[in-house]
Formats: sequence, structure tokens, C-alpha cells
Amino acid sequence: MTAGDGLLVADLIGVAVFAASGASAGIAKRLDIFGIAFVGFIAALGGGILRDLVIGAVPPLAFADWRYAVTAVAAALAVFWLHPQLTRWRRAVLLLDAAGLGLFTVTGTLKALDAGVPAVGACLIGMLTAIGGGLARDLLTGEIPVVLQRDIYAVAALGGAILVTILRGADLADPLTMAVSALLITGVRLVALYRRWSAPVAAP
Amino acid sequence: MTAGDGLLVADLIGVAVFAASGASAGIAKRLDIFGIAFVGFIAALGGGILRDLVIGAVPPLAFADWRYAVTAVAAALAVFWLHPQLTRWRRAVLLLDAAGLGLFTVTGTLKALDAGVPAVGACLIGMLTAIGGGLARDLLTGEIPVVLQRDIYAVAALGGAILVTILRGADLADPLTMAVSALLITGVRLVALYRRWSAPVAAP
Amino acid sequence: MTAGDGLLVADLIGVAVFAASGASAGIAKRLDIFGIAFVGFIAALGGGILRDLVIGAVPPLAFADWRYAVTAVAAALAVFWLHPQLTRWRRAVLLLDAAGLGLFTVTGTLKALDAGVPAVGACLIGMLTAIGGGLARDLLTGEIPVVLQRDIYAVAALGGAILVTILRGADLADPLTMAVSALLITGVRLVALYRRWSAPVAAP
Repeated sequence: MTAGDGLLVADLIGVAVFAASGASAGIAKRLDIFGIAFVGFIAALGGGILRDLVIGAVPPLAFADWRYAVTAVAAALAVFWLHPQLTRWRRAVLLLDAAGLGLFTVTGTLKALDAGVPAVGACLIGMLTAIGGGLARDLLTGEIPVVLQRDIYAVAALGGAILVTILRGADLADPLTMAVSALLITGVRLVALYRRWSAPVAAP
Repeated sequence: MTAGDGLLVADLIGVAVFAASGASAGIAKRLDIFGIAFVGFIAALGGGILRDLVIGAVPPLAFADWRYAVTAVAAALAVFWLHPQLTRWRRAVLLLDAAGLGLFTVTGTLKALDAGVPAVGACLIGMLTAIGGGLARDLLTGEIPVVLQRDIYAVAALGGAILVTILRGADLADPLTMAVSALLITGVRLVALYRRWSAPVAAP
Repeated sequence: MTAGDGLLVADLIGVAVFAASGASAGIAKRLDIFGIAFVGFIAALGGGILRDLVIGAVPPLAFADWRYAVTAVAAALAVFWLHPQLTRWRRAVLLLDAAGLGLFTVTGTLKALDAGVPAVGACLIGMLTAIGGGLARDLLTGEIPVVLQRDIYAVAALGGAILVTILRGADLADPLTMAVSALLITGVRLVALYRRWSAPVAAP
């Protein structure tokens, strides 16, 4: 297995986890099997589609490489059939979701930098890659996006994107940059979950 | 009238029908005349705009050819002025909507294939072309998209997109591919309506 | 200060005002500080991002020039900290919002014409540049977009975009075209506010 293969496998794990989150939201809203697959697809790949449109990489990877779409739909359908058992896996899903957050942020930021986007824009694109799918999932199921409400989630992604940009600027090797940044994002997210950290709201 | 003219006329009929569906949704939500025209425009052309962005055809046809925007807005305004009479035409609207579904799927899939998108991605883009406008219409009017809920609609489009891709691969002439696939999608959609077929939902 | 500098300053004032409107909507929905900054960013820059995607200008200006993102986020955070005082400034905000509407319409229409979009499409893109951010703000906060409901807002933008296109066709100098059209849009919007003009809704 080469480094590229490892990256693809990691990427597809992130796709599967985010698709599962979309499928769960669809089941909660009593969508039909197609709706559940669709929300899973968008939750997993919506952020990456937005990223690719914004950096001019058309057609987006979600349409150019069949493994992404197939992974997303398979994960969503697995949740459709298995969901009564899934409540027992809640901890595993949160862990994998945090890993997906870290990974999508890092690959999104690096792709934007490689496409010539300046630093501030690349950090924003990295964060949008990671949170865009969840945003679209919530809009499709009629909710105000949870990422905008009470949690350290997008902020961990943004911090990680800034770290990626700094390490790239310092000429660190890409695999090391990716590992350090993704672990940091995932770690911050997990600690925030564990300690119930949340961002402040405005004074009334 | 050449084949290209016939295709344009068929495409504009689809635009008009989808714009009418958007305008009806806007009236039900008590939007003003501008809101109704806007939701009609998005319902008719949102799917095609997404398709063109994803395959890199900029500016999208909705902005590059004035006939699309004018047809959409004219159809929406006609509904604005005529809507009390429209309830009598419900069957005609459902029939035309099924025809629009078939047509938009077929042209969307072929355009994606022509732009070099691989088979799986082209099928997804074809389906998104057909259902994207209705999705956007429902989001703009504050509804969970009806296509995600209880109907054989997007599934008919996806099946038709797969047929288009197979027939194109078998080197069938494009007009024949288009006619066969569009008729199949429209037919499946109409039979599903008539027999009240619907997709399964998850076990509770 | 050159003409280009003046344009940039005017553009950034529009960004700040629209970001403030997004932040206010976020506070009303009890979003956290990140959510408020995010809705502010999208309200200010969503229309321009859509415009740049549609005319093929990637990466969009919102990501290519850090001053746009920083201005939007700074304005949103200022509202987060100052909002109890903001109710006193309601008139100033409405005035600046009308100015932003005029300016975004004019620059959006001209950029579309410069990118080779035909007249009808360029007018639509100009209008979408001005209203797109507000649309996205309302979708993110779970509201049916206010621009679709009861006001002369988008119609003022569309009228101004048509004027821009006519004046450009008449070979008027760009700075004059921009000043005349932006003032007209802003003026119509302010008169509509003052006289409570609103667009008609459909007969029941």
C-alpha cells in the first residue's frame, strides 16, 4: 500500500462516517430510502463538491471518482438497514466523525493551497470542506445547522487549517503536516466533546 | 424545424412546467410577485445551473441563453395571474412534470458524458439536473424537499440516467437514446403516480 | 487614492453592512460566536461567491483577497459584542444596506458583462450578487427568505442591473454608469422603505 492508497482509504473512511451521519438525520425525519441515500451522499460529499467548484477542479472528485459516491451511498444504506443497532455505537461514530473532521480539513486546505489560493482563503476553504456537508445535511432536513450553534467543531477545523498553512509555509513534508494537523483537530474536537466545551453566545 | 430546434422546444417546455411548479409553491407561501418569479426561475433552472457548474460549462445555459430565463419567468407570472383556474389542470401539470423529469435527466446525463465525466458521476449529475430545481424550490419555501420523502421520482430519474449511459456506451444514435430513456423515465413516473408506488422508509 | 481604491473601499463597506445583517440574524437565533461570524461571512460574500462561480472567476474574490473575509468577520464580531447598542442605529443600517444593494448590483452586472455573459444573463447575475447573500443568510437561520416576501428590494436591484446594461451598451464611461445606477437603486430602495411600497401578492 503506497502513501496515496493510505490517503484514499482514510478519505473514504471520512466519507463513510459523514454519510452515516446524514443517513441518521434522514431516518429521524422519516425520509424514504432514496432520501436517506441522498442526504448521506450530500453530507459526505457536499463539502468536497463545494471545495472543488471554488478551486476550479471540475468535475468535482465526487463525480470524477466512482469510489466516493459508492462509499457514501453504501454507508447510508447500511445505516438504513442497521440503524436500531447503531445507538450502541454512538461513541464510535463520534470518534470517527472527529477523525473525518480532521482529515477533510487537512486535505481541503492543502488542495486549496496547491490550486494557488492565498493563505486566508485556503484556510476558509479547508474549514468549509469539513463542515459544508454537515451544513447541507441540516438544511435538507429542515434544521438550523448544528455547527452554527453550541459546539467546538468548526473552530477546531479552522485552527487546524491555519496550522496546515503555517506548516506548509515552513516547508514541512506534506505527510508530516497532514498527520500533525489532522491529529490536532481530531484531538481538540474529542476533548471539547468530553469536557463539553462550547463557544460563547451573545449577551441578551 | 431541425432536431436541435425540437430539442430546444422540448427543453423549454420542461423549463415552463418546472417554473409553474415553483410559482405554485411560492403562491402557497404567500410570496410576492417577485418571490414567485424567483422561485419559478430557480425551480426551472437551478438543476441546470448546478449541472453546468459541475461540468465547468460557464456561464451556465440559464444565463447564456435568454430564452431559458424568459420562459421560466413568463411561466411563473402566468401562474401568478391564472392560478385559481390551475387546480382544474392538475392532471396536465403532473403529466408535463413527468415529461420534464425525463427530459432533464437525459440531457443532463448526456452533457456530463460529453464533458468527459465518468459513468457513475454522469448518472448522478443527470439525476441532479432533474431534481435539483425542485430541491431548491422546497428549500426556498421552507419545506423538507418532497423528493426525499415518499415517492418514486428521483429513482426513476436515476434509472433513466443509467439507461442513457448504457445506450451511449452501446453506440446507439443519440436521438434514439434520448427518446427511449426519456419515455421510460416519464412512463415509470406516471405509473408510480397512478399506482401510488412509494419507496420504503426505515423500520422504526 | 485612485478610482480602484475608492471602489475597493465602497465594496468593503457593502461587505461590512451585509455581514452585520447576517450577524444580527444569527444573534436573534441564539447562534454561538462562530455561527454568527459564519452567517455574517455568508451574508456578505455568498452573493459574490455565486457570481464568481457562475462567470468562471475561480477562486472567488472572497477567497482570493483576504480583505473581504477579514472585513466580513470583523463586522460580524463587532455586532456580536456591540449589539445592544445597535438598535439605536437601525436607520443607519437600513441606509447602508440600501447602499450595499446598489453597489453589489452594479459591480456584479459589470463583472458578468466583462466575462462575456449576454445582457439578460448579466442582469440576473447582477441581481443575484446583491440578493444572494441575504437569501443564504435566511436559509441558514431557518427562515423563508425575506427578499421573496413583501418588499421592493430585489426589483430595485434588477431595474438597476438593466440600467447598467443599457448604459454600458451606450458606451457611457464606467465610473459614470456605476454612480448613476448605484444611486438609482439605493434611492428607489430608500423611497420604497419610506413610503412602505411593496410588491403585489397573488389573489387568493
